[in-house]
Amino acid sequence: MGQSLLEQAFEGKNKRIPVWFMRQAGRFLPEYRKIREKYSLGEMFRNPEIAAEVTCQPVDILGVDAAILFADILTLPAAMGFDVEFTPNNGPVIKNPIRTVRDLKKIHDLEGLEYLSKTIQIVNGELTKNVPLIGFAGSPFTVACYLIEGGSSSGFVKTLQLMHGAPAVFTSLMEKLTENTIEYLKLQKTAGAKVYQVFDSWAGILRAADYAHFVLPHLKKIFKEVKFPSIYYIRGAGHLLALADQLEADFLSVCHEVVLGHNPVLEKTKKGVQGNLFNGLFYADKKVLEKEINDVLLGARHYTRYIFNAGHGLLPDTDVEKVKLTIDVVRRFSWPVKGK
Amino acid sequence: MGQSLLEQAFEGKNKRIPVWFMRQAGRFLPEYRKIREKYSLGEMFRNPEIAAEVTCQPVDILGVDAAILFADILTLPAAMGFDVEFTPNNGPVIKNPIRTVRDLKKIHDLEGLEYLSKTIQIVNGELTKNVPLIGFAGSPFTVACYLIEGGSSSGFVKTLQLMHGAPAVFTSLMEKLTENTIEYLKLQKTAGAKVYQVFDSWAGILRAADYAHFVLPHLKKIFKEVKFPSIYYIRGAGHLLALADQLEADFLSVCHEVVLGHNPVLEKTKKGVQGNLFNGLFYADKKVLEKEINDVLLGARHYTRYIFNAGHGLLPDTDVEKVKLTIDVVRRFSWPVKGK
Repeated sequence: MGQSLLEQAFEGKNKRIPVWFMRQAGRFLPEYRKIREKYSLGEMFRNPEIAAEVTCQPVDILGVDAAILFADILTLPAAMGFDVEFTPNNGPVIKNPIRTVRDLKKIHDLEGLEYLSKTIQIVNGELTKNVPLIGFAGSPFTVACYLIEGGSSSGFVKTLQLMHGAPAVFTSLMEKLTENTIEYLKLQKTAGAKVYQVFDSWAGILRAADYAHFVLPHLKKIFKEVKFPSIYYIRGAGHLLALADQLEADFLSVCHEVVLGHNPVLEKTKKGVQGNLFNGLFYADKKVLEKEINDVLLGARHYTRYIFNAGHGLLPDTDVEKVKLTIDVVRRFSWPVKGK
Repeated sequence: MGQSLLEQAFEGKNKRIPVWFMRQAGRFLPEYRKIREKYSLGEMFRNPEIAAEVTCQPVDILGVDAAILFADILTLPAAMGFDVEFTPNNGPVIKNPIRTVRDLKKIHDLEGLEYLSKTIQIVNGELTKNVPLIGFAGSPFTVACYLIEGGSSSGFVKTLQLMHGAPAVFTSLMEKLTENTIEYLKLQKTAGAKVYQVFDSWAGILRAADYAHFVLPHLKKIFKEVKFPSIYYIRGAGHLLALADQLEADFLSVCHEVVLGHNPVLEKTKKGVQGNLFNGLFYADKKVLEKEINDVLLGARHYTRYIFNAGHGLLPDTDVEKVKLTIDVVRRFSWPVKGK
């Protein structure tokens, strides 16, 4: 057992609970903002030295149990021929979104990701063996939403229009994204990522029937073909959890909709569970926050394999001291639970 | 039983299923767009003749079984001293949002809603007794989101900040909104609304614990004090449905997250059920749409009291012919279900 606490958690052999945070490498850290003043987001992603430094910052500053690659879920489509601009406040903009079936033909296979492999190699050189690097990709559906809408959206009208109005075109886009996502994750594994997470931020907008038909088969393919420890994160989607449990992912990462210890799908799943402190609670005072962290941990005792995280990514104005407090509370929690 | 089909459905005495749509008075109707070319949204809301005409349009054009008052969920805070601008594309903007506890002091009780009463009176003069007018209000939480964010939002960061960072201030805002919502709905009843619906578009962003603590007590007060047939619409919130079932609302209106006939809360509720055709399905071809409508209706057979609606508001580019087809399919469906 020479591996890290996080990797041990995949086998249920960890002696305390591993903790990391989505968006732990980001704006809430003053050290990140200092770098961000000098470079655009696009420059930061594509410069291996800078991306590696930002990836390692939360490990050095907070003492989290894993690093997650500093990249964007649109790094993949950018390498497939989409013209992506990473704007700081309103989310990314895709200047050549998918509008018709002809736009699909312009998509090419992955190109120019040497900088990403290089970033991973630098990170692995800097991290100790106790702290693994988590690679990641957006789920094909979540990425498709961006590519169809041309950026962030609240109603996803164009996506629904394509899905239900031209289902063959939609599925063809999903297939192309899926193939490339598989290559993309394999590339990260080859470069040195030890675990990967697939982020499904927008699947929650779908009915179970649409998720089962248009999304699940593609995700199944990814988790079947990319064989290293894996986490599927699904947001705002308690109604899709039973379907998501069909995936071959090792862990399900759930948002605050789910109450740990009280969810019928998680009660029966053979997967590990990751989550799910509500990130709004970092605004509460420390006493309230501490109680809420303990509530999450008490719920987590029902599961054999568990990783602590927030339910969503950390918000840009999150108080660093409260994140440190959270890590302390998780560290002090008695684990593994006896007699489980 | 001189009342309408919709009112009969509240007693479970209806001989066919009543059907209406959220946002049925809106941009997808060419007749609406013609009026909209000449007036701003604010002008349309505040002019009783125009608002009444728009309210009645879907009854005349589509033949729906109810009219819903043409107003905005921010009509209420506008009457409480908030400076609301109804912008056409990006949702409303509040120019004096809630930032500190001092902003709460500037809120006053309802003023200047004579135009709304007048609109309701005109509508009632035009509608036959078979078609009742539905009044409505935003839920205090959903309205509070707008007032705190200053408009639409995707992350609701400021709302979470106030809720968890200054819970007493947040609750004080909720109390003021609740009192005025009660007055607002009573005013609509007095003017002639026969049914009311409370729209909770954003409650779904909350954990069950936060909804129970910060939202539910206020909603309970509204449905307890405003005594005429009532519907509570909650969106993206399957995880909150068991709590919502504690309200004294007569009907629960659910979005497409819920599968009718397969939901444990609706299985046991004593309330009626409204919903929930996925509005993205209006983009599908007619054969698919017809099958999906039938699936909703087959699920609805499990409930004694039922009203057909979409899961969300109709989208601006919805095909009018498909909405008419939907109404036809619902009309042809055999009801009441024998032996239920």
